[in-house]
Amino acid sequence: MIHHDGSELHVPDQSPAPGSDVEVFLRTSPGVQQVHVRSVLDGEPRFSDAVAERRGDELWWRATIPVHNPVTPYRFLVDGNWFTATGLAGHEVADTTDFRLVAHPAPPAWIRDAVIYQIFPDRFARSAAYAERALPPWAVPCGWDAPVVGRGELTSRQIYGGDLDGIAGRLDHIQSLGADTVYLTPFFPAGSNHRYDASTFDTVDPLLGGDAALARLADALHARGMRLVGDITTNHTGDAHEWFHDPAARDRYYHADDGTYAAWYGVPSLPKLNWNSTGLRKAFVDPLQRWLEHLDGWRVDVANMTGRHGTDDLTHEVSRLVARAVRDVRPDAMLVAEHAHGAGGDLDLGGWQGTMNYAGFTRPLWTWLRGPDLALPDFLGVPGGVPTRGGDAVVTAMRAVSASMSWRSWTHSWTALSTHDTPRVRTVVGDAGRVEVAAGLLATLPGVPMLFAGDEIGLTGAWGEESRQPMPWHDEAGWDHTTLARYRALLGLRRAHPALRHGGMRVEHADADTIAFWRETASERLLVFARRASGPPVDLPLAGAVNVYGGAAEAPADGPTFQVWQFMATPIDRT
Amino acid sequence: MIHHDGSELHVPDQSPAPGSDVEVFLRTSPGVQQVHVRSVLDGEPRFSDAVAERRGDELWWRATIPVHNPVTPYRFLVDGNWFTATGLAGHEVADTTDFRLVAHPAPPAWIRDAVIYQIFPDRFARSAAYAERALPPWAVPCGWDAPVVGRGELTSRQIYGGDLDGIAGRLDHIQSLGADTVYLTPFFPAGSNHRYDASTFDTVDPLLGGDAALARLADALHARGMRLVGDITTNHTGDAHEWFHDPAARDRYYHADDGTYAAWYGVPSLPKLNWNSTGLRKAFVDPLQRWLEHLDGWRVDVANMTGRHGTDDLTHEVSRLVARAVRDVRPDAMLVAEHAHGAGGDLDLGGWQGTMNYAGFTRPLWTWLRGPDLALPDFLGVPGGVPTRGGDAVVTAMRAVSASMSWRSWTHSWTALSTHDTPRVRTVVGDAGRVEVAAGLLATLPGVPMLFAGDEIGLTGAWGEESRQPMPWHDEAGWDHTTLARYRALLGLRRAHPALRHGGMRVEHADADTIAFWRETASERLLVFARRASGPPVDLPLAGAVNVYGGAAEAPADGPTFQVWQFMATPIDRT
Repeated sequence: MIHHDGSELHVPDQSPAPGSDVEVFLRTSPGVQQVHVRSVLDGEPRFSDAVAERRGDELWWRATIPVHNPVTPYRFLVDGNWFTATGLAGHEVADTTDFRLVAHPAPPAWIRDAVIYQIFPDRFARSAAYAERALPPWAVPCGWDAPVVGRGELTSRQIYGGDLDGIAGRLDHIQSLGADTVYLTPFFPAGSNHRYDASTFDTVDPLLGGDAALARLADALHARGMRLVGDITTNHTGDAHEWFHDPAARDRYYHADDGTYAAWYGVPSLPKLNWNSTGLRKAFVDPLQRWLEHLDGWRVDVANMTGRHGTDDLTHEVSRLVARAVRDVRPDAMLVAEHAHGAGGDLDLGGWQGTMNYAGFTRPLWTWLRGPDLALPDFLGVPGGVPTRGGDAVVTAMRAVSASMSWRSWTHSWTALSTHDTPRVRTVVGDAGRVEVAAGLLATLPGVPMLFAGDEIGLTGAWGEESRQPMPWHDEAGWDHTTLARYRALLGLRRAHPALRHGGMRVEHADADTIAFWRETASERLLVFARRASGPPVDLPLAGAVNVYGGAAEAPADGPTFQVWQFMATPIDRT
Repeated sequence: MIHHDGSELHVPDQSPAPGSDVEVFLRTSPGVQQVHVRSVLDGEPRFSDAVAERRGDELWWRATIPVHNPVTPYRFLVDGNWFTATGLAGHEVADTTDFRLVAHPAPPAWIRDAVIYQIFPDRFARSAAYAERALPPWAVPCGWDAPVVGRGELTSRQIYGGDLDGIAGRLDHIQSLGADTVYLTPFFPAGSNHRYDASTFDTVDPLLGGDAALARLADALHARGMRLVGDITTNHTGDAHEWFHDPAARDRYYHADDGTYAAWYGVPSLPKLNWNSTGLRKAFVDPLQRWLEHLDGWRVDVANMTGRHGTDDLTHEVSRLVARAVRDVRPDAMLVAEHAHGAGGDLDLGGWQGTMNYAGFTRPLWTWLRGPDLALPDFLGVPGGVPTRGGDAVVTAMRAVSASMSWRSWTHSWTALSTHDTPRVRTVVGDAGRVEVAAGLLATLPGVPMLFAGDEIGLTGAWGEESRQPMPWHDEAGWDHTTLARYRALLGLRRAHPALRHGGMRVEHADADTIAFWRETASERLLVFARRASGPPVDLPLAGAVNVYGGAAEAPADGPTFQVWQFMATPIDRT
């Protein structure tokens, strides 16, 4: 056994100040003879000795790292072998998988306790006011039950009429689920139902109820102790955006002499913002800050492309500029960045607090839990459909992706089983049993769980657009109430156990069909057991354990199953 | 079998222009069904199909990658598994190990053909003029055979009197060895024998013969078609530097209000340069450019720390600034950066062409070839001495470190068995047999071989200072002439075979005691076989091979041994 992660159990100071010395702990089996920690200061490695202390069956090696830079990479030398964030290596390693101490301002404390509920406003709930609203010319009104047209000229024009007051009327549902933070995809006026083509950042779309409705929704959430997060496009605007038609703001886009301009994926309705423009840098601060009167944070759309265009690579500057603007008015705000793939290079820069963790959560879990009959043409953009992989591949993938960022960034990233851009988890995994396993992992793995509205009642959808079918409020009988009850129980479990939100994460066992891991704080240890199918029994050290989810006294050999045991008295309590 | 690297065989366009489409080839066994290539454009992954063509026993998959950014990461999807620069992975991976296409200006063509000979000027050779020179007050004159004082007050003050005209008098030796580029550690006036504490960058130390001697040495080298590379400190100067005593240049250093200042490792004689200073940025261009009248490039000292200090991280800016200054006057110049550890994050930025590859060459080879009785207290700064590892660990380490940079940066990095900062390779590996294996790998692995003067005659030294004992020109009888002949033969082999300089590198076999690999171009294949000790025979596909080094017809079971076979008719010739 050898383990370290960036959780409080192993790094007591979670917000190290520059200039401080930070204690770190490595846990090993008793046989280990010598441990040093190698940390990097001003670009140069240095070593400090670690001192061992026996705690139960383990040695806890304590070492001190000088924190001099905003990010301090470190790794351990264990009897001549390297131990990095990807594990023990009996060979020389690159510096890319070092652990990282981050001395940038820490994200607000509430985030690691949050559970996000994602709403695509047009499809969640209508208020009574909907009937009275005039639609813009491009919009094609649809009955709430009308099928979504997945691909075609109508796709972005279908308006079902969900609005912000409609959301405010459904907060009981969200809160009863155990979610406490509503994340809205964009609410700015636009030329589409998805609104990622904003025509201004200065007002809330009247179709959604306008500015006043946003204030009402925010107030209603805040009155319940809940929060609201918005969605902003730093990569592009709509081609109807006021900046795009302002000759004085021409430098905010990439115009060519021939009348063409750069656009997201070449789609002309989404002209790309040019962050070389000082005018843009100034102008963008206003909406970022203004809406934080009501919002508690932002999700940043297409953050991975923002500021990148040919020889321009201003992404890191933009992330810091946005973060500064946000912190200046709301140091307690969330700021998370969309990346559809590995985000490591764009994190730990004092900008984004985390990413949407498709790479290290959604993708690995899909490969493990995908249904036997799933026949998607691609895997979130990767040709060839969703491959079938074992639980060991999930663990390896999570280690590989998490090693590309700090523990702080990893635990402040959103974990999602589905989003408005993907097939629904129920469709991916195929049945309610595997949805329970998936939801169990959502509730128990590190990260901020994000639930796409409708997953909790078993909605299906084979691609992003189909997953945007409106919430069937009027057909409660058609809901999967078993799944709903499980989501409530699992998110309740997360709320009840700090170790699931703040604990370290240590793998106990992984094979093709099984993943078992510890979540640990100084005062509590939970052992999580996830199985996708029946298989050989796994022997877990369950002496003294109390089952807190799933009901089994021993690890079941049948599956799918999801079990969690709690250990109250802990031999690893720090003295 | 599955292979790709960035060599011309697999990426025919070695200097892709932004806006171009670049062909890449993946080689696999015939069983592979489907290959896609995933490349990143403006931060977003995209896929293109690969098409297979049968060549001999292999499938060659051809795909096209759009080059839109200065660096284009790419990887392959092979029947649902990822193939990256660290190999095939049956799990989701981070983006950190992608292959990289680089569209920054390409380094000059001569570099990949170069063999560097490193000279520490005070210890290489005296000219007759030495006797007439007055020594500065700090200097303690030493007889050429006097022992180097390794650690103490005298260490940096011992002056043996080697000079530039002395070097010019020994060019036959260097050239006969097969080296064509002399790299000098600093030649600026300073307060020590190592001269990393320059007191000016404007003149050549009179102790070395002054400016005129540098011109003479450069002319003598150029007359032979050879080159000369200097060494400059971007991280610090000496405390006697004229800038450090110029009130108008105060902002070029990190002065604190209490009279203290930042310095390399806190050593007061080496005040750290502050690259926030626009004055420094301007002033530094002059010496960089001026000496390129004579020099053919620079090695940049302590590049890993340059520009890094607390919250400052200006390293990448400095690397670009230096590269621009160099390119502006000498587009054909070499520019390589010292890193004592992983440099991946500081390369492929349009700055340094490569690094001193301690991490991916020196360290792995030492762990493999270290002598059984070696008792160094540390491993290039890592506590606990040099670990003993197998050939498989060497291959894994090289893959891990090379995956953190482009093939271009990997092949433009200096590979060294010893330097003026390390123990001598002969001391590390213990005997001439293993030195032959080490020198064989120096001559045949990707990278620019750098030989520290004296290694070729078997000099020993257990740490950096001891390795600086002067060259025993007067004691030729005491040289290891066997080793000298082997170095000449091996560097001659490298010169004779373009595949050793421009070829791809593909591992055929690795076990504890053996490493065998291919170097391949479109017209030539070489199979290199290195063994550190006797062991079980290894079956190599040697049909049709001609031994070009070592003399064996089959892979020897005894060792240490170093063998190279050439295959002239090649089934992988591109049609």
